[in-house]
Amino acid sequence: MARKTAPDSSRRSERSRRAILDAALELVGEVGFGKLTIEAIAARAGVGKQTIYRWWPSKAAVLFDSFLDQSDGAPEVTLPDTGDLAADLKSVLRATVDEMENPKYALPTRALVAESQNDPELGAELNARVLEPQLDAWAARLRTAQQAGHIAADADLRVAVEMIVGSLFHRWSLRTLPLSHGYADAIVDQVLRGIAVSPSGSPAEPSAG
Amino acid sequence: MARKTAPDSSRRSERSRRAILDAALELVGEVGFGKLTIEAIAARAGVGKQTIYRWWPSKAAVLFDSFLDQSDGAPEVTLPDTGDLAADLKSVLRATVDEMENPKYALPTRALVAESQNDPELGAELNARVLEPQLDAWAARLRTAQQAGHIAADADLRVAVEMIVGSLFHRWSLRTLPLSHGYADAIVDQVLRGIAVSPSGSPAEPSAG
Repeated sequence: MARKTAPDSSRRSERSRRAILDAALELVGEVGFGKLTIEAIAARAGVGKQTIYRWWPSKAAVLFDSFLDQSDGAPEVTLPDTGDLAADLKSVLRATVDEMENPKYALPTRALVAESQNDPELGAELNARVLEPQLDAWAARLRTAQQAGHIAADADLRVAVEMIVGSLFHRWSLRTLPLSHGYADAIVDQVLRGIAVSPSGSPAEPSAG
Repeated sequence: MARKTAPDSSRRSERSRRAILDAALELVGEVGFGKLTIEAIAARAGVGKQTIYRWWPSKAAVLFDSFLDQSDGAPEVTLPDTGDLAADLKSVLRATVDEMENPKYALPTRALVAESQNDPELGAELNARVLEPQLDAWAARLRTAQQAGHIAADADLRVAVEMIVGSLFHRWSLRTLPLSHGYADAIVDQVLRGIAVSPSGSPAEPSAG
């Protein structure tokens, strides 16, 4: 939700805004989304409830801004492009591993993942505001490589992105094995092999087996 | 948990057991894991609480048996091996899509996924009893193909399995896009291309980009 304050809002407003975003993130990790209240966020942030309602329509809206704020507040997510596709994807996926191992980020994310299992509307808002822009950024980086001829012209980039992000998410969400930078690298290498240009100019056919 | 009844337990016991497993599965989809009680399962199944406690130590144990029972009660999960690796994997992944679209299976699974976000012990039990045997079965099918020379000798089969299952889980769990058989097929094709034997006998190197 767009904040209703003018761009020249005072430093005091900015301090309140940051305190509210930090409080929301901390609290949802502690009590879960279901028990999170605007009252508790206000108390933790040291502001009045009305200050929060002036800027955000709901606790979900506060929380999504907290997540966006974590990623440097950048509304546009962009992957690095050094010209080395594998290195670029690995650096971002390793950073994601580090983030998901950090309780400050992991606990609120788990709270939202848990809640959205049984609340499709919350899930849809989480996707629209936080997740899809990230998936789009991954796809954009792959598209650049595809246009440069390094990825097969008929490769399905959306599926490739879901394979990268989904493999990490599965292990993290279900805690099947520890996350590691080695796992991040292995995912990127396998996915890139699957969509790389083969000598004939299209992906290699999988063998029967 | 092993049931304490003898193999020749009466037909009436078997009817009670089935009623309990069905009731547990229905209820967890309705009220979530946190609010699921042995009392409610007993009431829905039309048995006494003690009948449940005689066979299972906890509500989680009942629920895991409900899941295992769904998969034909087979303690060993095995993937088909018709000699056509891609077709075998696609048939299993398509069946998984159908299962995850079926509320009877999807709702209890969502309840357990949600609960295990913040209950690592429950998650560990879910992994040990339900998930890891499935991942092992996928890996075993890939290993057969690897031994037959259809998959690169140095391919990481565990990562390949997590890519297959994780891509589906990510889309299902976060509801980013609808599941479909086409998605299942695309996942299998991309993963197999990533681990297929290249002309030189090892996976193709990903291009820079």
